[in-house]
Amino acid sequence: MNFSSKLLEDAVAEFAKLPGVGQKTALRLVLHMLNRDKEEVQKFSSTISKLRNEIQFCQTCHNIADQAVCEICSSHKRDHGLICVVEDTRDVMAIENTNQYNGVYHVLGGLISPMDGIGPADLQVDTLVERLKDVQVKEIIFALSATMEGDTTIFYLHKRLKQFNINISTIARGIAFGGELEYVDEITLGRSIVTRVPYENSLSG
Amino acid sequence: MNFSSKLLEDAVAEFAKLPGVGQKTALRLVLHMLNRDKEEVQKFSSTISKLRNEIQFCQTCHNIADQAVCEICSSHKRDHGLICVVEDTRDVMAIENTNQYNGVYHVLGGLISPMDGIGPADLQVDTLVERLKDVQVKEIIFALSATMEGDTTIFYLHKRLKQFNINISTIARGIAFGGELEYVDEITLGRSIVTRVPYENSLSG
Repeated sequence: MNFSSKLLEDAVAEFAKLPGVGQKTALRLVLHMLNRDKEEVQKFSSTISKLRNEIQFCQTCHNIADQAVCEICSSHKRDHGLICVVEDTRDVMAIENTNQYNGVYHVLGGLISPMDGIGPADLQVDTLVERLKDVQVKEIIFALSATMEGDTTIFYLHKRLKQFNINISTIARGIAFGGELEYVDEITLGRSIVTRVPYENSLSG
Repeated sequence: MNFSSKLLEDAVAEFAKLPGVGQKTALRLVLHMLNRDKEEVQKFSSTISKLRNEIQFCQTCHNIADQAVCEICSSHKRDHGLICVVEDTRDVMAIENTNQYNGVYHVLGGLISPMDGIGPADLQVDTLVERLKDVQVKEIIFALSATMEGDTTIFYLHKRLKQFNINISTIARGIAFGGELEYVDEITLGRSIVTRVPYENSLSG
């Protein structure tokens, strides 16, 4: 592109580094910035900068937090004997939104993915093992994506955690609520027949 | 959404103000920011802030510029007797990329749109009229979008500029190069029959 201004070009280049943002979208966003008040743009830029400089990760569960220990880990109302292992903070938000879970979390910070060069050492695995040595943990729930990486991670963690006398479970997989059978993919449908549950157990809601 | 951190929530809210960016995309962008080096994020935020504070608009053509007069307006190689009227800086970039135009520009900063409350007073119309009083301008080319707003703007400007003894033209409208007739919309096809040109004139390329 043929920019009339170096400042404009630099700003477009910065926006274009964001995931899913190309040159044209970046230019549109930058022109939008130019149409806004100086104070608003200042607030935008200082909020981003402040976020990166001041954000903390909870010492216990490694979720994004404003303090050294996050609200969930420091709450006395939560069941600290139940740990839900998730990939990142978005999964914590999704599970919290269900209002169905009262335990605490452990945020791995990713999934094992040899293709992307991510191994157990890059994740919060050792800190999870440490947590189990400590306290009255009774159960670990794996709430990871139903993908190759998710399954690999569960397989690895299961081996590491077998030494402890703890119940290990994964969230249920099967056809989604409201899902029509004819549109469900074959793997999901096949597995949900193999892993069928007694009718009484399916009435949890 | 249920954020674990106020800093995170604020940053997501700022990103979600961008056009075409919803809460989920904003969260994805913010988490991407958290994964980048502090210096990179600092550069991002300072580039945006610098852009908004230091950007200038050319005194002559009102295009975005780094100096008081833009490179095109201060160039002696351009034909200052030919002014191309466009909506915004993206149109200048698009026309410059064609390498087919050697005149100067006038950036209106928008189009007349009563629905959005944008009238001639919100645009660089008076400054265009001023420019024509001054110098050796021989021709004005309207290069505006072929929309209701574009046509309204051309209609209005044409009335305002009639007083001057200047050629007024608009960029050619018709079927695009490479366009197959059966896929061209009816209005474009109909008009391109009505405004047909002698064969010799169509061989400009």
